[in-house]
Amino acid sequence: MAEVIFPRLALVGIGLIGASIALAARRAGVVGEIVVTTRRPETLRRAEELCLGDRYVSTAAEAVADADCVIVSVPVGACGAVAAEIGPRLKSGAIVSDVGSVKASVVRAMQPHLPGTVSFVPGHPIAGTEYSGPDAGFAALFDNRWCVLTPAPEVDPEAVTLMVAFWRALGANVETMSAEHHDLVLAITSHLPHLIAYNIVGTAAELEGGIRSEVLKFSASGFRDFTRIAASDPVMWRDIFLNNKDAVLEMLGRFNEDLATLTRAIRNGDGDTLLDLFTRTRAIRRSIVALGQDTAAADFGRNDH
Amino acid sequence: MAEVIFPRLALVGIGLIGASIALAARRAGVVGEIVVTTRRPETLRRAEELCLGDRYVSTAAEAVADADCVIVSVPVGACGAVAAEIGPRLKSGAIVSDVGSVKASVVRAMQPHLPGTVSFVPGHPIAGTEYSGPDAGFAALFDNRWCVLTPAPEVDPEAVTLMVAFWRALGANVETMSAEHHDLVLAITSHLPHLIAYNIVGTAAELEGGIRSEVLKFSASGFRDFTRIAASDPVMWRDIFLNNKDAVLEMLGRFNEDLATLTRAIRNGDGDTLLDLFTRTRAIRRSIVALGQDTAAADFGRNDH
Ligand SMILES: NC(=O)c1ccc[n+]([C@@H]2O[C@H](COP(=O)([O-])OP(=O)(O)OC[C@H]3O[C@@H](n4cnc5c(N)ncnc54)[C@H](OP(=O)(O)O)[C@@H]3O)[C@@H](O)[C@H]2O)c1
Ligand SMILES: NC(=O)c1ccc[n+]([C@@H]2O[C@H](COP(=O)([O-])OP(=O)(O)OC[C@H]3O[C@@H](n4cnc5c(N)ncnc54)[C@H](OP(=O)(O)O)[C@@H]3O)[C@@H](O)[C@H]2O)c1
Repeated sequence: MAEVIFPRLALVGIGLIGASIALAARRAGVVGEIVVTTRRPETLRRAEELCLGDRYVSTAAEAVADADCVIVSVPVGACGAVAAEIGPRLKSGAIVSDVGSVKASVVRAMQPHLPGTVSFVPGHPIAGTEYSGPDAGFAALFDNRWCVLTPAPEVDPEAVTLMVAFWRALGANVETMSAEHHDLVLAITSHLPHLIAYNIVGTAAELEGGIRSEVLKFSASGFRDFTRIAASDPVMWRDIFLNNKDAVLEMLGRFNEDLATLTRAIRNGDGDTLLDLFTRTRAIRRSIVALGQDTAAADFGRNDH
Repeated sequence: MAEVIFPRLALVGIGLIGASIALAARRAGVVGEIVVTTRRPETLRRAEELCLGDRYVSTAAEAVADADCVIVSVPVGACGAVAAEIGPRLKSGAIVSDVGSVKASVVRAMQPHLPGTVSFVPGHPIAGTEYSGPDAGFAALFDNRWCVLTPAPEVDPEAVTLMVAFWRALGANVETMSAEHHDLVLAITSHLPHLIAYNIVGTAAELEGGIRSEVLKFSASGFRDFTRIAASDPVMWRDIFLNNKDAVLEMLGRFNEDLATLTRAIRNGDGDTLLDLFTRTRAIRRSIVALGQDTAAADFGRNDH
C-alpha cells in the first residue's frame, strides 16, 4: 500500500480539477480524510452524491480547519478571495496549493493573505478537458501529464517535496519553475491556442446566415477541432486572459508577424515558403507524439467513423 | 446485395483518399472491376500488396481505357496534367470525377482537356486524417461525412445521379453546389483553420531553445490539437492555398479584424467582451456535436489517459 502523504486534505472547489484530484488521490491511497467545500450548495450536494470526499462543509473557512494540505481549485480570478477567507484558519505547518492556469497573478493575489506559518506551493496540472463541474472529473486525468509547481525560493523544501510526491502519486510528472516562466510557456502552449480558437469560431459565427449553417455542416474538415477548444469554460478563460495579459500579448505579437509573412506568401503565390513551413510543422507533431504527449492514432482516435 | 453502379472504376491516385474510395466501394459492392494507377511504381506495388484493386497499371492513360467512372485523387495542382493525359483515352459516356479540396481551380484546370462525350462531376469528400499514402486508407472514412459535388449546370443529370448514388453507397451524405460557393465555405471551415494551425506551430518552432522544448513537453494544454492539423500533407496544403487564394485571403481579413478587437479587449481588461465571445463559441460546439459532425466524448475521446 502507498503511504499516506496528507492525513487530512481539504479541497476548496470541486469542479473538473478538484473532483479529479479527489478521485486520483483516493485511487493512489495517499490521503486520509478528504474534506470538500465549494461555492454553491447544489455543487456540494452533487459532490456528495458522487462520493468525492469523506466530509462536505459549506464554507472554505471550516474546510481548512486542521487540514495538512489545502488545494484551491477555483477560477484564477477567485483565488485571492478564497485565500483571504482561509488565511486566518489555516493550521500552522499546513501546505497551501492551487491549480490555477496562471501563476504569477495568483501568487500575487493569494500570498498576502497566507500566514508565515504555512508553506505556499502553487501548482498547475497541465491536463483538462472541455467539460466542467464535478461530474467531469476522473481519476486518470493526470496520468502521464505534467504538473508544474512554482514555489518561491524561500519556501520550505520539505513542503515542496511532499507536493511533488503527492502529484507523482496522482500519476503526473512534476516540474518546478518560476511563476513568471510558467506564464510565458503557457502563453504559447495554451493561452494563445485558445485565443485563436475562440477567435476563429467567433469569425465563423458572424458569417451571413447561409454560409454559417454550412460551416457547421462541413466542420469535419478542420474547424471542428477548434470548436472543442473554444468550448472550454468561459469564466475560467476570461480570468486567464485578464491575468496573463502581458505574456499573451507578447506571443500574439509574434503570431501576427508570422501570419503577415504567411499571408504575403499566399498572395504572391510563393509555394516554396509554404512548403517549407508545412514541412517543419509536421516534424513538431512527430516530436510531441514521440514525447508521449499525444496519441499517434489518426484523427486523435476519434471513434465517430 | 447492392447493385453495381460502375462495372469498371478507374482510380488515378491511390493515397489516403484513393485507397479509402477503393475500400469503401468494395465494402458497398457497388463496383465491378477496380483499376488502380499512381505516379510512382513503389506506391503501385504497395497498393497491390494491400489488395486495393483488381488490376494495377503504370499509366493513367491505360487505367482509364473502357472505364465507366474515373476518379482522380491526386494533389490539386496535379489535376490538370492528369486530365491532359487521360482526356484522349476516355470512353464515350464515361463519368470523370475528382476529390480535390479546392474546386473552381480544379475545374478550370481539368475541363479544357475533357472531351464533350464525357460527363465531368467534380467532387470533394469532406473527410480525412493527418496521414497520407495507401496505408492510411480505410473503408469507413466517409461514413456519415459529407461529400460535395460541383457539376456545371449543363452536365447530364443522369451522371450526377450516379455519382450521388456512388458516394451514398460509400457512406457519405451528398450535397451539390457551385464550385465557387464550395471554395468560400471551405475557406472558412478548413483552409483558414489549417493556415492558423500551421502558423501557430511555426511561431512556437521559432522560440528560443529553452522555451521551445517546454512547448513540446507541455503541449497537452491546447497546442497539441493544432499540431495534428499542422501535420497534414505539405504538398496537398501548398496546392490548396495557391489554388484558393482569393477566398482564403478574404476569410483571413475577417479573422484579423476580429483578432484586433479581441486583442483590444485583453489589453483593456474588458472581461465582459471576452465572456460574451467565449459563451457564444461554446454554443457552436454544441451545434456541431448535435449535428453528428463530432464526438461528444471529452478530449475527442483520446485514449491516452
Ligand atoms: N479545466 C481545465 O482544463 C483546467 C486545467 C488545469 C487547470 N485548471 C484550473 O483549475 C481551476 C478550476 O478549473 P475547473 O476546470 O475545475 O473549473 P470548474 O469545473 O468550473 O469548477 C470550478 C470550481 O470553482 C468554484 N467556483 C467558481 N467560481 C467561484 C468563485 N467566484 N468563488 C469561489 N469558488 C468558485 C466552483 O464552485 P460552484 O460550482 O460551487 O459554483 C467549482 O467548485 C481554474 O483555476 C483553472 O484555471 C483548469
Ligand atoms: N487528406 C485529406 O484529408 C483530404 C480530404 C479530402 C480531399 N483531399 C484531396 O484528395 C487529394 C489526394 O489527397 P490524399 O490525402 O489522398 O493524398 P496522398 O495520400 O498524399 O496521395 C496522393 C496521391 O496522388 C499521387 N500524386 C502525388 N503527386 C502527384 C503528381 N504531381 N502527379 C500525379 N500524381 C501525384 C500520389 O502518387 P505516388 O504516391 O505514386 O507518388 C498518390 O497516389 C488531394 O487533391 C486532396 O486535396 C484530401
